[in-house]
Amino acid sequence: MTKISPTFALADYVVKAQQSDIPADVWQESKRAIHNYLGCAISGSIEKALDVAIDVLGPFSGPATTPVLGRRESFDALHAALFNGIGSHVHEYDDTLPTNYIHASVPVASALFAYAGANPVSGADFMEAFILGFEVESRIGDAVYPAHYDAGWHITSTTGVFGAAAAIGKLIGLDSKQMVWAFGLAATQAAGVREMFGSMAKSWQPGRAAQNGYTAALLAQANFTAGEQGLEGPRGFVPVTAASYDLDKVTNGLGEDFALRVNAYKPYACGLVVHPAIDGCSQIRAKHNPAPSDIQAVRVRVAPLVLDLCNKRDLYRELQSKYSIYHAAAIGLVRGKGGIQEFTLAAINDPDIKRIRELVEATADPDVTEDQVAIEVDLKSGETLSLFVEQSLGNIHRPLSNDQLDEKFRDQGILALSAEQVETLIKQCWNLEALKDAGDIVRSSVPTSA
Amino acid sequence: MTKISPTFALADYVVKAQQSDIPADVWQESKRAIHNYLGCAISGSIEKALDVAIDVLGPFSGPATTPVLGRRESFDALHAALFNGIGSHVHEYDDTLPTNYIHASVPVASALFAYAGANPVSGADFMEAFILGFEVESRIGDAVYPAHYDAGWHITSTTGVFGAAAAIGKLIGLDSKQMVWAFGLAATQAAGVREMFGSMAKSWQPGRAAQNGYTAALLAQANFTAGEQGLEGPRGFVPVTAASYDLDKVTNGLGEDFALRVNAYKPYACGLVVHPAIDGCSQIRAKHNPAPSDIQAVRVRVAPLVLDLCNKRDLYRELQSKYSIYHAAAIGLVRGKGGIQEFTLAAINDPDIKRIRELVEATADPDVTEDQVAIEVDLKSGETLSLFVEQSLGNIHRPLSNDQLDEKFRDQGILALSAEQVETLIKQCWNLEALKDAGDIVRSSVPTSA
Repeated sequence: MTKISPTFALADYVVKAQQSDIPADVWQESKRAIHNYLGCAISGSIEKALDVAIDVLGPFSGPATTPVLGRRESFDALHAALFNGIGSHVHEYDDTLPTNYIHASVPVASALFAYAGANPVSGADFMEAFILGFEVESRIGDAVYPAHYDAGWHITSTTGVFGAAAAIGKLIGLDSKQMVWAFGLAATQAAGVREMFGSMAKSWQPGRAAQNGYTAALLAQANFTAGEQGLEGPRGFVPVTAASYDLDKVTNGLGEDFALRVNAYKPYACGLVVHPAIDGCSQIRAKHNPAPSDIQAVRVRVAPLVLDLCNKRDLYRELQSKYSIYHAAAIGLVRGKGGIQEFTLAAINDPDIKRIRELVEATADPDVTEDQVAIEVDLKSGETLSLFVEQSLGNIHRPLSNDQLDEKFRDQGILALSAEQVETLIKQCWNLEALKDAGDIVRSSVPTSA
Repeated sequence: MTKISPTFALADYVVKAQQSDIPADVWQESKRAIHNYLGCAISGSIEKALDVAIDVLGPFSGPATTPVLGRRESFDALHAALFNGIGSHVHEYDDTLPTNYIHASVPVASALFAYAGANPVSGADFMEAFILGFEVESRIGDAVYPAHYDAGWHITSTTGVFGAAAAIGKLIGLDSKQMVWAFGLAATQAAGVREMFGSMAKSWQPGRAAQNGYTAALLAQANFTAGEQGLEGPRGFVPVTAASYDLDKVTNGLGEDFALRVNAYKPYACGLVVHPAIDGCSQIRAKHNPAPSDIQAVRVRVAPLVLDLCNKRDLYRELQSKYSIYHAAAIGLVRGKGGIQEFTLAAINDPDIKRIRELVEATADPDVTEDQVAIEVDLKSGETLSLFVEQSLGNIHRPLSNDQLDEKFRDQGILALSAEQVETLIKQCWNLEALKDAGDIVRSSVPTSA
């Protein structure tokens, strides 16, 4: 018996998958992922990287058929996929798969919202395509991780192009042969290196992956042929980009195991290792609500890695504030959160935050894990408030609740939209499977006039 | 003293290069390369892969500003770059650098002709940008070859994106910092795997490289930032895509050594290893002109590799005819050439070619190199015509003459254009440095009504 190739098996699964076969918890989790994605896309819609990309490439768009999420401009769906991808990743506030470090929603949802803005598609079909695209991306990522990532590939974009191709290919009804070609055309466009981290080119990568995957599906639909072992062929994506790999991970448990079940959402718009400090300080604020002026000393004991990476107290640029244990503790105590607004120049220079930041003492403790922190806050009254965080909010053991996702959404949405629009979008997200047209979300995200 | 990074050094060279510094022989060779490229673009303009790509992606083009080479349709310059690249590579009749197997003209010239169709640019500026783009591509290729190619990368597209970025970046006047970003944005889009060979996706790759390189230059011009060590950074293009490499090759002899000097043009539209047989048989025909019906037996002694790869006599598909030693000898004797038209179904079924193909006996001889062939043709008169080819036409020791390039051009051009148009284009190519507007060539390539 000939072994079925992983490329064909994965393609055939996507083509033949039925909505009724998707487990209820996966179905539900896809809404959380899409909801989290959408908030990131709205807050990123006002960023400079996206402004520049739109200025430069907008003139090369075909007739406008869909708005970009969170913006007033409309473009053709392929350009919208690119622009959605830049906007939703630019703050690096999107989701993360702890198994392979893929930010999996961006390439898939960016293509899907571009499609939905331009074509009628039911909420349920949208969710199904999202789940399948997400799964394709994660499985290919599992097959090549960690060698692929360690080599320097930006795994979100290199695997994201396959996810976008699968999602769009599902919606446009590719047959199995065409889906194989779509994966070949994805393999041939898989790109993005980690050397770009810290520049605008980083968010370009998942955006281009969304656009390229969408393009691959359209070409395959018209029988533009490609190599049929795009993944496992000796000169295919997997062997070419990973020194070691496990192709069984592409197909093991297909249809039963779903990566969405372990998907993680960032509670804070900054480096992961300072999340426990924001979390713990926010908990102290929620419980005791000390006035910043009453705080006399703050001591945090953290994993040694935290001080290796985030030991900067004097901050001049926004990016620095995302990697400062001192700033992390201060915003938790003063604001009780760590959204986009807590890492602006205004937040850096906020007198209360600045004062607390200067008070914080941090010590490295090898017994504290990267998910933990021990905090002591001395008040002028003589009282000491203390807390030990066992598991940081947002990790797999303490996922964000739906309410916390809503709060994160509001915090981001308000940067570009009215409060009313934000609430409409939140409702549409939770109601996605019942929406007759998922494009309603895209249209609801366009800023109304001031 | 800090060592200047290869990325910066190469970018700075391109930005500061002057036309007056380019040696005369390189200047001249660039015209031969562009001429050869253009013929390939014209003959490829009628191929199905390009038809499909245009059908699918044409609707996503912005306002039309330039024709695609050899076609009636116009698109925006970025789409035209893609389409030019597919058309010019689809027959695999374009040039080859023997040092790194890059088909270097396609990504660079495809972007440049798209630019020239849409923007005024003098012939001299066009040639300079071509020379620099070609050089960038080849130097990066030299740095990563052979490990990069052996791993499975399609080196023409992975390095081509840098060449296109350099060429367009030169024309739009990027400064050194912007050119560094353009190279970063090229690194981040470098893609294309050899698993796609034999499918439409193969010609897609250099086309997309042309479009992506052009895009990189436009983004950089608008200060869309990228990592500044796109080549040599630990997670940059070179270390990520090549297990071993030599970064010195990026800069050694920059401004003095030019890859164009060793660029090779294929005399025949088929697998390289059967070129000596077509060459030798064509020489016999040119000298003795035997009627096909007078030929009684044909014996060829070839390098063993030829029989390993090209030992097929019964041909049903066009692609098979490109890898048949029997067909190669037959077309040489019957037609004296091996252009696109000699590898069609019509040629396969041509009664004279078919008869001779069935007569040919091929034997492997380890003393015959892959550039050689020994031929004996028995005529009915009892006479035997024999020839030994020492160096096959088209290799570095026997480059195609300008007249032979013209002949190749005519042979291809006539597939899509009138004989008069073909002659106009040939004249424009040889006169390129004096053209006030290189876009004249693009416009001359549009088929006039029948």
